[in-house]
Amino acid sequence: MRAESGRVRYWRRHIEKLGHDCAALDIACPSESALRRDIERLLGQTPDCIVKISVIRGGGGRGYAAQPGSRSLRIVASFPASAERHDWFHNGVRIRWCRTALAIQPRLAGIKHLNRLENVLARSEWDDPDIAEGLMLDTEGHVIEGTFTNLFVLDAAGLTTPDLNNCGVAGVQRDRMFEMAARLGIRCRIEQLSMERVLASAQVLLVNSVIGLWWVSNCEGRRWGRNEMLDAITRGLDDLGD
Amino acid sequence: MRAESGRVRYWRRHIEKLGHDCAALDIACPSESALRRDIERLLGQTPDCIVKISVIRGGGGRGYAAQPGSRSLRIVASFPASAERHDWFHNGVRIRWCRTALAIQPRLAGIKHLNRLENVLARSEWDDPDIAEGLMLDTEGHVIEGTFTNLFVLDAAGLTTPDLNNCGVAGVQRDRMFEMAARLGIRCRIEQLSMERVLASAQVLLVNSVIGLWWVSNCEGRRWGRNEMLDAITRGLDDLGD
Repeated sequence: MRAESGRVRYWRRHIEKLGHDCAALDIACPSESALRRDIERLLGQTPDCIVKISVIRGGGGRGYAAQPGSRSLRIVASFPASAERHDWFHNGVRIRWCRTALAIQPRLAGIKHLNRLENVLARSEWDDPDIAEGLMLDTEGHVIEGTFTNLFVLDAAGLTTPDLNNCGVAGVQRDRMFEMAARLGIRCRIEQLSMERVLASAQVLLVNSVIGLWWVSNCEGRRWGRNEMLDAITRGLDDLGD
Repeated sequence: MRAESGRVRYWRRHIEKLGHDCAALDIACPSESALRRDIERLLGQTPDCIVKISVIRGGGGRGYAAQPGSRSLRIVASFPASAERHDWFHNGVRIRWCRTALAIQPRLAGIKHLNRLENVLARSEWDDPDIAEGLMLDTEGHVIEGTFTNLFVLDAAGLTTPDLNNCGVAGVQRDRMFEMAARLGIRCRIEQLSMERVLASAQVLLVNSVIGLWWVSNCEGRRWGRNEMLDAITRGLDDLGD
């Protein structure tokens, strides 16, 4: 989560997603008041930072069975507000395709759990600091997401974002994109997306609640200019508030 | 790993599997001498126990990218030699089917990595202490493994164990079963297995390097007696040594 001037952006959405995802894994979610207390202490030191909440089922021991009556643990940590390079927001980002595929697992799809080995392997496929993100396909070849961002494509028909019923993380900023589109009267569909469809689009957008929104200027040689709709979309997201 | 009288069973096999699986994830494997040193210290205290080695990529920080130059961390821990109930070995075990499916992910198949959320969810489907294990299918309906064991079926044609090219963990005891079968002249095949095939078999066997070998006496009402081949198989595994 991004904190600015001592305030966590999109707090209500984040806490709802945390509660939803804990419930999906049958992990007791820490109380909002306990989390707020932890975060206030951190933001007292560094009002502008990235805050990360992890919830661990707890119990320890050997084997996969839950320990009866064990309480979940929370880890609330702050990280320096990353120098997301300013020119990436303005000039667009270079991205690439990842070879590591996402497995089809409807039981875990959408959830921000900590089993992210696929994303870790995908991110290890490049070390060129000028490449901002890699796009991941599922094992059936549908485009799903970036390693740490959700993806939208923009074309004459409006916005389209991949169906995440089989895999991927449904992030908070993705929901904000839906609301922004509804407010501005931009059609926004959830569909299976092919690589060809992504490359044929008028603009590729990457979003998450830390970076906000990036537009893609180059994907392995396919180049895009800055689409004229981009200013309206960026302003629409800002106007939504938290 | 099971340690008996200050000695880790199947050490050579475990250290080879650890090296193989670390390489598959591009994690630096700790040296054998460092691991031996850690384990000898533990076994000096408790010569009969379960030893668990975890290797963490290390580096920390936020995001999925590896920190250049970071060293892996090893965690070597001992647990009480579990009271695997003696009657389970002799009288057979009750098992059930799990609803949580294993995703098809060839990139990670066979590897004992730490992203075991599917197994954790499957194990949470029952809390009856008389049920020893649950069998897991992949998302296409093939029988793959137990939540913490590999599976073999025995019938007139010999032994058959599931193909683990798409998912599942290929354990050390599974390899020992192959060698035992070759020595005894029992045909042993690797194939896709259906639920029907498992239920129609003359005996279902569950193996791992901690429990050794269990035979299944009851799976949701389907009952089996102790197969006459079982003594030969058990003796064959013992005779293999480590």
